Amino acid sequence: MERSGLLVILSSPSGAGKSTLARRLMDWDPGLRFSVSATTRKPRPGEVEGEHYYFRSPEQFRAMVAAGEMLEHAEVFGNFYGTPRGPVEEAMRAGRDTLFDVDWQGGQQIRASSLGGHVISIFVLPPSLRELERRLVGRQQDAPEVIAARMRKSRDEISHWAEYDYVIVNDDLDRSAEALKTILRAERMRRARQVGLGPFVRALMEEESA
Amino acid sequence: MERSGLLVILSSPSGAGKSTLARRLMDWDPGLRFSVSATTRKPRPGEVEGEHYYFRSPEQFRAMVAAGEMLEHAEVFGNFYGTPRGPVEEAMRAGRDTLFDVDWQGGQQIRASSLGGHVISIFVLPPSLRELERRLVGRQQDAPEVIAARMRKSRDEISHWAEYDYVIVNDDLDRSAEALKTILRAERMRRARQVGLGPFVRALMEEESA
Repeated sequence: MERSGLLVILSSPSGAGKSTLARRLMDWDPGLRFSVSATTRKPRPGEVEGEHYYFRSPEQFRAMVAAGEMLEHAEVFGNFYGTPRGPVEEAMRAGRDTLFDVDWQGGQQIRASSLGGHVISIFVLPPSLRELERRLVGRQQDAPEVIAARMRKSRDEISHWAEYDYVIVNDDLDRSAEALKTILRAERMRRARQVGLGPFVRALMEEESA
Repeated sequence: MERSGLLVILSSPSGAGKSTLARRLMDWDPGLRFSVSATTRKPRPGEVEGEHYYFRSPEQFRAMVAAGEMLEHAEVFGNFYGTPRGPVEEAMRAGRDTLFDVDWQGGQQIRASSLGGHVISIFVLPPSLRELERRLVGRQQDAPEVIAARMRKSRDEISHWAEYDYVIVNDDLDRSAEALKTILRAERMRRARQVGLGPFVRALMEEESA
């Protein structure tokens, strides 16, 4: 059945397993498109154009905003970040869903955009904050003060849980990945998304009796 | 996670597999409650009180309506039919879902009731009307004019497909049963249904740092 693509917003505090879950979802459905943001900040070592970000000059970015080519955009610490509208609309028309790995601010902006009616939003909660801190410490990537800052950001992120359509408590990665797939499968069965249903029912009603 | 129960409305033209799908769903989740209607019509041979219907006198029925004990009710060919509110609310509070096997009119009334915010509605379409007629003829239960009347009722029922949240085209019973379960699983993960989330997040935020 022909259907229109969804905008799937996935948010969680860092360390709650969101990136792993996003990867599992992409593996499960190769048709799923991962939304890549545009930014005016400089690439960091290892960052690839079009994979991690679309790197644009401030002039290019402003021109895109002026031309209505950004679904949403925001300034963070003097740099601009935004979601190019074109690839999202193209995927939607092709019946492909787009996955947005964004924080609560990004989620709010995409919901408030002109494509907000096509959004489903999922928040992933950690089973405990102590467990989250333990995971961050366990990575051995960050200094204690960086971890403390991350934990403050985590609490801020969690405080927005009630803005999301679905909530998953990630106490088991396999179960959480299965839960994500279940949500996507069900949302794709919504009448309003199955744009092929109207023509299907019309043809059904026009069938001659046997 | 504690959650509030759902009101699951399942509708379809007769012969499209709805009863079989309802039974599969009940087998899958023994906690699911099948809604039994009250009626003033006389029991038919084999019909069991409390299983097929709650059989009530017109006086009893009117008293229930007057006392606000009916979630919805309607008169059909001089008999009253209605859904007692008590068992539905009791199931909801216990986190159990109630399954309503009703036609589009029953569906509209339950959606319009005070519990309408807890409703999810699913419409099962046959893959073709000719196939539906073939199934009805194949049962060898009904005279041709009865089948013709049923087919008219089927078209009337199908004409209301666009009032439902989800639509399943039942071209394979196993796949359709799986689709139904997927919808229920996903709907149970909706933030608004998981009434245990508020207390859970409060406790999470109050955790002491490790």
